[in-house]
Amino acid sequence: MKAFMDEHFLLSNETAKGLYHNHAKDMPICDVHCHINPEEIARDRSFDNIAQLWLGGDHYKWRLMRANGVPEDYITGDAPDYDKFLKFAETMPKAVGNPVYHWAHLELRRYFDCTLDINGQNAPAIWEAANDKLRGLTARKIVRQSNVTLIATTDDPADSLEWHRQIQAGPSFETAVVPTFRPDFALCPEREGYSDYLTRLGQTAGIEISSFDTLCQALERRAEVFHELGCRASDHGLAAIPFDHEPEGKTALLLFLSGVYKRLGWVMQLHYGVERNVNAPMARKLGADTGFDCIGPAGGGQNLARFLNLLAVSGSLPKTVVFSINPNDDPMIETVLASFQDGGARMRHGPAWWFNDSKEGIERNLTGLASHSLLGTCIGMLTDSRSFLSYTRHEYFRRILCNLLGKWAENGEIGGDEQTLEQLVKDISYHNAMRYYQFT
Amino acid sequence: MKAFMDEHFLLSNETAKGLYHNHAKDMPICDVHCHINPEEIARDRSFDNIAQLWLGGDHYKWRLMRANGVPEDYITGDAPDYDKFLKFAETMPKAVGNPVYHWAHLELRRYFDCTLDINGQNAPAIWEAANDKLRGLTARKIVRQSNVTLIATTDDPADSLEWHRQIQAGPSFETAVVPTFRPDFALCPEREGYSDYLTRLGQTAGIEISSFDTLCQALERRAEVFHELGCRASDHGLAAIPFDHEPEGKTALLLFLSGVYKRLGWVMQLHYGVERNVNAPMARKLGADTGFDCIGPAGGGQNLARFLNLLAVSGSLPKTVVFSINPNDDPMIETVLASFQDGGARMRHGPAWWFNDSKEGIERNLTGLASHSLLGTCIGMLTDSRSFLSYTRHEYFRRILCNLLGKWAENGEIGGDEQTLEQLVKDISYHNAMRYYQFT
Amino acid sequence: MKAFMDEHFLLSNETAKGLYHNHAKDMPICDVHCHINPEEIARDRSFDNIAQLWLGGDHYKWRLMRANGVPEDYITGDAPDYDKFLKFAETMPKAVGNPVYHWAHLELRRYFDCTLDINGQNAPAIWEAANDKLRGLTARKIVRQSNVTLIATTDDPADSLEWHRQIQAGPSFETAVVPTFRPDFALCPEREGYSDYLTRLGQTAGIEISSFDTLCQALERRAEVFHELGCRASDHGLAAIPFDHEPEGKTALLLFLSGVYKRLGWVMQLHYGVERNVNAPMARKLGADTGFDCIGPAGGGQNLARFLNLLAVSGSLPKTVVFSINPNDDPMIETVLASFQDGGARMRHGPAWWFNDSKEGIERNLTGLASHSLLGTCIGMLTDSRSFLSYTRHEYFRRILCNLLGKWAENGEIGGDEQTLEQLVKDISYHNAMRYYQFT
Repeated sequence: MKAFMDEHFLLSNETAKGLYHNHAKDMPICDVHCHINPEEIARDRSFDNIAQLWLGGDHYKWRLMRANGVPEDYITGDAPDYDKFLKFAETMPKAVGNPVYHWAHLELRRYFDCTLDINGQNAPAIWEAANDKLRGLTARKIVRQSNVTLIATTDDPADSLEWHRQIQAGPSFETAVVPTFRPDFALCPEREGYSDYLTRLGQTAGIEISSFDTLCQALERRAEVFHELGCRASDHGLAAIPFDHEPEGKTALLLFLSGVYKRLGWVMQLHYGVERNVNAPMARKLGADTGFDCIGPAGGGQNLARFLNLLAVSGSLPKTVVFSINPNDDPMIETVLASFQDGGARMRHGPAWWFNDSKEGIERNLTGLASHSLLGTCIGMLTDSRSFLSYTRHEYFRRILCNLLGKWAENGEIGGDEQTLEQLVKDISYHNAMRYYQFT
Repeated sequence: MKAFMDEHFLLSNETAKGLYHNHAKDMPICDVHCHINPEEIARDRSFDNIAQLWLGGDHYKWRLMRANGVPEDYITGDAPDYDKFLKFAETMPKAVGNPVYHWAHLELRRYFDCTLDINGQNAPAIWEAANDKLRGLTARKIVRQSNVTLIATTDDPADSLEWHRQIQAGPSFETAVVPTFRPDFALCPEREGYSDYLTRLGQTAGIEISSFDTLCQALERRAEVFHELGCRASDHGLAAIPFDHEPEGKTALLLFLSGVYKRLGWVMQLHYGVERNVNAPMARKLGADTGFDCIGPAGGGQNLARFLNLLAVSGSLPKTVVFSINPNDDPMIETVLASFQDGGARMRHGPAWWFNDSKEGIERNLTGLASHSLLGTCIGMLTDSRSFLSYTRHEYFRRILCNLLGKWAENGEIGGDEQTLEQLVKDISYHNAMRYYQFT
Repeated sequence: MKAFMDEHFLLSNETAKGLYHNHAKDMPICDVHCHINPEEIARDRSFDNIAQLWLGGDHYKWRLMRANGVPEDYITGDAPDYDKFLKFAETMPKAVGNPVYHWAHLELRRYFDCTLDINGQNAPAIWEAANDKLRGLTARKIVRQSNVTLIATTDDPADSLEWHRQIQAGPSFETAVVPTFRPDFALCPEREGYSDYLTRLGQTAGIEISSFDTLCQALERRAEVFHELGCRASDHGLAAIPFDHEPEGKTALLLFLSGVYKRLGWVMQLHYGVERNVNAPMARKLGADTGFDCIGPAGGGQNLARFLNLLAVSGSLPKTVVFSINPNDDPMIETVLASFQDGGARMRHGPAWWFNDSKEGIERNLTGLASHSLLGTCIGMLTDSRSFLSYTRHEYFRRILCNLLGKWAENGEIGGDEQTLEQLVKDISYHNAMRYYQFT
C-alpha cells in the first residue's frame, strides 16, 4: 500500500517513476491558457489567508460545498473566512476521486509544505500552517517557484492591456506574460450591452464601429497590438461552433478573424458546448461563473467539420485547437481534426477541459489522441485557472502521462529505447506547446 | 488465480477485502426502488421450483436465451419448467461478462448453498439442489435472510394499497414495506384506456376527475394516503424529460406534482429514455416488459436542465434522483444536477440502471459521480427487480464499491485514516439512502 | 518489464497466455469483410517494395503522416518510394498507442522476420530486410502463410465478377475467395453518374432498368449470381440507416433487398455513420478514400430500431450485422439488436470498425457485447483492409480477446473448467463466423 500522495503519486510502475522523476518533473511550464488577472502579477499581489486564495473565486470548490449541503453563506456569502475554510475542509473527505481533492492536497504540499489530510479535524492546523507560509508568498514568487516560462492570460480586444504593458516595462520577471485575444463579446450581438461594448472597442482601437467592416477593422487592429505584446493565440468560448452555408453574422466574423489569425501565425482556440447559468435564480443572484454551468448536449462535431472546411476552402484555416465540454464529442473531434492536417499538421485536440479535467478524463483524452492521431504531437496541459496555485495541474497531468507511457512500455506495447520515451515526455510536457504556439 | 466467486469475489486488493468483509457485508439493505409485488409479501408466497423463480418474469434472462437461439416456447411458451431451466443453463457459459451470469451464480450460492457452475451438464443437479432448498423458503424468509430494513415497492396512485395495508396490519415483519407513488398512467393521456384509468383513479381518490384541476386534486389526495403508509418517493418512467416554456400537459402536471412532493419532503425519481416495445410483432404477441425494450437516443440533459430550472424558478424543486438509460447522458446529467445543489444538496444521480447495471456500468457510475460531485453522498444501489433473490445486487454493488475505494487507497490516491474509508463504505452502502429518503 | 511485442504481446496473465498459444493462435482465419482486389489474387500479384505494399493505398498511414507535418508529396505525391517510406518510419515513434503502430510492427515480424523498431534510424535496414523477403512473396503466398480459410471481398452488383470466376476456375488455391454484394451505388440516386451506373448494372444483369421494379429485378438477379459464386452476405455503407413510415426510395429498396437476403439465407451487413470527404479541397484533389473522412454524429440507433421493426413486421428481416462508426451509438445498438433476437438469434453487433479498431476500441466492443448480450456468440474480427498483410489484425484481436477472458478468469469472474474458455476462444476466433455466415 502506497502512502497517500507520496513522491510516486499516480506512478504505478518503475518505468513511470523513472520517466516522471528524471524527465518530466523538472521541465518548465508553458501555460498557454489561463484566467490569471495580469494586474495581480503587475502589482505582485499577496494574500491574507488560504480561504481567500482557495475559496475567493473557485466555482469548482463552491459546487462541491453545495453538494455537501453547505449553506450559501459559507460559500459566496458573508461568513468569516475561517468558517468558510472549515466548511470546505469538512467537505473534502467525501470528495475522494474528485480532481479538486487531489489538486487541493497537491497545492498544500507544494506551496505550503503541509501534508495534513484536509478534513474538519485538521482544519485549524492547516489554516495556521498555510497562512504562515502565505505571509512569505506573492503572485510572482509562486510563479517563479513553479518554474513557469510563459503565462498566456485571457483578454478582451477592448482591453487596453495596460497591465501587460506594465509587466513588460516593469522590473525584470523571468516569466513571459502575454495576452490572448478573446473576442467573445464582439461575437455576441444578442448580449446585453453590446452597443456599449462596440463603442468601447472602437475607442480602444481608434476606429468608429458602424458596420461589419469597421468591426472587422477594429478587431484586426487590436489583434496586431496584441501580437506586439507577445500574443500568439486567440481564444473563443462558443455555445456552439457556428456554420451557415452563406456565412453571415457569427460565422462571417469568425471566418474573417480566422484569416487574421492565419496571417499572424496564431493559434485559434475553440472552446464550445457549455450551457451557462442553467440555474437561473442562483445565476441571477450571484452572476456568471459562480458554479451554475453544465455540460451541454453532444453533437458539435458536424458543424466543426463544416466550419473547418469553410476555412480550408477560403484559404483562411489557421492552426486550430478544439475543446468540447461534452466528452461524447471527442471521438468525432479527433477524426475531424485528422481530416484537416494536410499542409502542416496544424490541428490539435485540446487537453481535458473543465468538467473533464479528472484523472479519468486526462487518461481518456490521451488515449483518444493516441488512437486517432499522434500522441507525440500532444501539446500538453494548461491550467485554465484564476489561481496562482494551479500549476500543480501540470504536475498532475505529467504524472498521468508518465504513468500511461510507463504502463504501455512495461506491457511491451512500446518499442524503441529509453530516449524515445524521454523525448515523448519532454515534448508533451513542454516543448510541443512552445513550438506549436511559436513562443520560442 | 482466484477461484470463481470465492469470498473475495471482485475484491482485487487487501484494502478492498477488509472494507467489504468488515464494513460493507453486514450492513442492512435499504431497497429504495423495486418491482416486488406486495401481495407476495402479504401472502408470504412460496415457490414450486427455481424455473418459476428465475424464469417466470425475468426479461433479462429471456433476452439472453433468445440471443442463444432458444425457441420462444422454452422462454415464454408452454415448455415444461425443467426444459426451460435447462435451456437457460445451457445459455450461461456463453454469458461470461454479463451481469446475469454473476447474479445467477451469486443467487445460487447465497440462497441455495449451491456452488455449481450453471451449464447444461450441471442443470439436473442444480435443479435438484435449488428446488430442495426452495421447499423451506418463502418470500418473507428470503427477505429476512437478506437483512433488508426497508422495501419500497412501485405503485399506481389508483392502486388501493390494500396489500400494503395488510402487511402493516398483519403479523409482525421486521422489514418495513412502503409504497412508491408512480403516476405514469396519469401522465399519459395518449395511452389506450386513459379515460377508464381516470375513472378508476377518481374512485380510489373519492374525486370525480373532469378537468386538469380535479386530476391534480385526486393525485394529491392519493399522495397523502401513500405518505401515511410510509411512502417517501415518487417514481416516474418517462420517455423523455418534458419541458415547454409555457408549461402545459405533461410538463404542467409534473410541475404540480413536484410541488406536492416538495411539500411532503419526498424524493422525485425520474427514469427516462427507454424505447419500449421496439419489436412490434413480439411486443404485440407477448405484451409489455417481455424483453423488447432498448436504450433510446442520448440527449435528454438539456430538457432536464430546463425542467429543473422551471421547478427552481417556481419554488417547487423537490429532492430529485435522475436516471437516464443512455450512458452517454451521464456526464451532462452529473453537471446539471451539480448546478441545482444550492439550498441543501438535494439532487442525486441514480445508480447504474437496467442496461447499465453491469460491473463496468457500476464502476463508470461511481467514477462519474466522484469526478463531478461527491462520491461520499452516493445513495447506493437498488434492485429494480421483481424477484426476491435480487438482493445479491446490493452485494454485487458493494463489492465493486469496496474494490474501487481499495484500489484508490492502495495506489495512494486517498488520504485519511481507516475510519474515513469505513465511513464512506457504510454511508454509501446504507446510511445515505436511509437519510436522503428520510426513512429513519 | 516485458520486451516489446514478444510472444506474449498483450497477454498480461498466465491464463491469457495459455488461451492464446494453445487455442487461438493456430485457428484458421475466416475474413468475412475486406477490400482486397480479387484481381490481385487471380494474378497472384507480387510487390516491388515495402512502400508500395504499406503506403500505396493506406489512408490510415497517410493521416498519421499528415499529422506529423509530412508534405503531401511524400504521402500521395511523386516522391520516390524510399523517401516516402522514410517519412513514414520517422512518424512512427510519435504514434505509440495507435493501432497502426502495432499493426506495422506486427506485420514486420510476421511477414518479414524483422524485429527492428520502426523509426528514421532503422529505416534503411528495414527497407533492405523487408524488400529482400518481399522478393519471395506473392499475394497467394501471403494468404496461404496466414492460414486463411475464406476471404469475402466487396463487390458491386454491376461487377462482372470475372476475377472471382478466374480464381475459382484457375489453379487450385486452398483459400475460398467469395464476393460480397455491395449495392451502395444503386441506393444513391443523388450520386453523379447514377444513370450510367443503372445502364451498366442493367447490362450485367441482362435487364433494362427503367423503373423501381426493374431495378429490383436486376439486383435480385445479380444477387443470385453472387450466391452461386459463394457469396453469403451483402454489405451496405450508409450515411444513415434509412427509415420512412411509408417506405419509399432508399428505404423501399433496402426493404426489398432484405427480403432477397432473407430468402437466400444471407447476412446483411450495415455500416453507417461515416462523414465522407469533409475536407473538400483535399478530397477534390485526391479523390475518395484518401484520408479525409471522419466519424459522423451519434444518433442512428432510433432509425435502426424502426428499420429492423419494419423488416420484422413485413417478414423480411434477414440475419443482420450492424456497425456504427460513432462509438456513442454502441450501447443503443447492442440493446436494439437484443430486441430482435426472437426466431433464431440472427442479429450481431459488428466488431470494432475503422476508427474504433484500436486496443481500447476492441476491448470496449467485447465488453459491451458481454454486458448486453452473449460474448460467446461474437463473430470475431475482420480486416476491412485493402492489404494482404492485414491478417495480423486477427492476431491482434485474438490476443486482446484472450487477455480479457484470462483477466476475468484469474480474477475469479468466470466459472467452468478450461474447456469452457477454450470453446469460447475457438468459437469467437473462427467457428462462429463460419457458422453464422454459413460458409461451412
